[in-house]
Amino acid sequence: MNTTTVIGTGAIGTSVALALTRRGISVHLEDVDRAAAKTAEAMGAGSLQTPDRPVDLAVLAVPPAQVGSVLARVQGSRLARAYVDVASVKQVPHDDVRAQRADPASYIGSHPLAGTERSGPLAARADLFEGRPWVLTPSESTGQDVLNRALELVALCDAMPVVMDAGMHDHAVALVSHAPHLISSLLAARLEHAPQDSVRLSGQGVADVTRIAAGDARLWGDILTSNAAAVADVLDAFASGLGRAIDALRAAGDGDPAKRARAQEDLEELLRQGNRGCARIARKPGARRTELATVAVTISDKPGALAELFTSIGELGVNIEDVRIEHSWEHTRGLVELVVQKDAAAELSRWLGSGGTWAVTRADAFSGFKTE
Amino acid sequence: MNTTTVIGTGAIGTSVALALTRRGISVHLEDVDRAAAKTAEAMGAGSLQTPDRPVDLAVLAVPPAQVGSVLARVQGSRLARAYVDVASVKQVPHDDVRAQRADPASYIGSHPLAGTERSGPLAARADLFEGRPWVLTPSESTGQDVLNRALELVALCDAMPVVMDAGMHDHAVALVSHAPHLISSLLAARLEHAPQDSVRLSGQGVADVTRIAAGDARLWGDILTSNAAAVADVLDAFASGLGRAIDALRAAGDGDPAKRARAQEDLEELLRQGNRGCARIARKPGARRTELATVAVTISDKPGALAELFTSIGELGVNIEDVRIEHSWEHTRGLVELVVQKDAAAELSRWLGSGGTWAVTRADAFSGFKTE
Repeated sequence: MNTTTVIGTGAIGTSVALALTRRGISVHLEDVDRAAAKTAEAMGAGSLQTPDRPVDLAVLAVPPAQVGSVLARVQGSRLARAYVDVASVKQVPHDDVRAQRADPASYIGSHPLAGTERSGPLAARADLFEGRPWVLTPSESTGQDVLNRALELVALCDAMPVVMDAGMHDHAVALVSHAPHLISSLLAARLEHAPQDSVRLSGQGVADVTRIAAGDARLWGDILTSNAAAVADVLDAFASGLGRAIDALRAAGDGDPAKRARAQEDLEELLRQGNRGCARIARKPGARRTELATVAVTISDKPGALAELFTSIGELGVNIEDVRIEHSWEHTRGLVELVVQKDAAAELSRWLGSGGTWAVTRADAFSGFKTE
Repeated sequence: MNTTTVIGTGAIGTSVALALTRRGISVHLEDVDRAAAKTAEAMGAGSLQTPDRPVDLAVLAVPPAQVGSVLARVQGSRLARAYVDVASVKQVPHDDVRAQRADPASYIGSHPLAGTERSGPLAARADLFEGRPWVLTPSESTGQDVLNRALELVALCDAMPVVMDAGMHDHAVALVSHAPHLISSLLAARLEHAPQDSVRLSGQGVADVTRIAAGDARLWGDILTSNAAAVADVLDAFASGLGRAIDALRAAGDGDPAKRARAQEDLEELLRQGNRGCARIARKPGARRTELATVAVTISDKPGALAELFTSIGELGVNIEDVRIEHSWEHTRGLVELVVQKDAAAELSRWLGSGGTWAVTRADAFSGFKTE
């Protein structure tokens, strides 16, 4: 792939253009908003000149509802040999391409799952897609060369291709993106008229749950209506869990101890389902498997012995990832397991062995997750 | 205040003990779990010796349902001159104190709003309460000297006292903590049996919304049943918003353009309510008002000019907090506003004035939020 045209210089389109330019691809930019296109050009995303022959790939970075009509127009002018859109829902573009009698053979739907909180070309970044999933939704008419061109695009943007049916994609993003956004908004809405003294008690928990509720209401209104049925299905299932939770809470407040115990069990089961669901989600960007090691130390049974140990480790500058303590240590001495980066374990063992009121008993390497 | 006893050496109790010890208060520790108490002692949180005369303040760091009975017991042995509990709900302890015929004059309820994701003494930190709200719920029987003793405790822990009625407290935490936790769990539960390819598409948004769903199911089952009625009230109101959202989504998917437009308006109104509620929440710890300044720069109308400007600023090592661009710049030149820390503005102006293909037009200071 040598030449592309990016149509639509918002945050996603400009990010694609920046990523491709960085890889030496010749990128042409097009946008009905001339100021946006000029901003993208000024950022080094590509050229505003019209290509003089068909480009290898045209990237349609336009709203979902416009994909079909824009595709029909640019295919009519023989802009490119292959066409891909990057809209956040896939069934609507898929159906519109047929309704607009565009050529489905040279087109493939796609969706890079890269969040940008801000919109417009200034929010673009060449590395926006690095390590993120990028869904491709070829139809039965999509040519294999077109699929391969799209796979090349994904690779050039350092993203991870995931091939999926358009309808399946829309249900998936309803579950992991659109419904969570609406639920976050509905919870945040409860705070709008709450007393100031109540809102003052907010901690990191509710701040995290409502963070995405700050998103652009018009943009999200568009997204939600484009994927309305799938989002409604997820919310229906969610509402039934919510109903069970409310029933359990009403029963718990009822006063009867047996009822209360049963209600608490029901609530705990709902919470455990949440634990299990939560465990399936990829950690935040930056989480990676790191080689860790355990250094086990016995400490003396005197008050402040742990504090002394931690102070000593702090002086060495080694970061403690986790601490475990043996609960049998009531008798005489305590066994403390310090979890550290593997590279630091040997140094830590030596340091601890050289002084203090403790003894290093063993050091084992293992592999675990560390979230940065 | 010179002497205290902390009853219960979990994460909260041990954190209180560490904070007080750091301030030179003599702290006695007590826990039915001897291993936990010894761990707290080893961390330097205090002494396991029983005090030989009444202490100035006893801190009851026990589960909500045990506050009344523990208070009655320790008042019977004249452990302290004043008593405060730190349980996360306040109406149940308030009622139990009366039911157990404990002395309400020497007791005050309280709740430090400090989250600890881990439990047990090893999760304790002397600075856990720094800058956090700490609610005090004096009853009509609480002595003024007892209120003042509790205010002293809050100040020694560097927290921010908030005086509130017990029932009002419980409704407030239902809104900003308990209901959000349950909603996060119910959403995470939707992911438990979802296809792996769907879960792979999860991004930072759903990860944030479901983060607290990883919390201990038994602990949260306890908290929710202790505050069941207030949480159910919040969830009922939330469920009615959810119902409206589902109706709007079903209408949007209906196919009739007028219906769809009205549905999108309804959804956007719900999303805007979410925007407004979200804006009321305190930013994450570390957010603070910073003096910022705008440096306005006109750049030439040549491709890559913005990229060149940013590269040059990068060399200077100045951090750009935000960028705004004038959309009228279609003609000849572009106006770019760079938002930086006020301290850096003068240096940036000088640096940009000394070369490059741009011109600094003005630099204004203003005050804004920066999240660290």
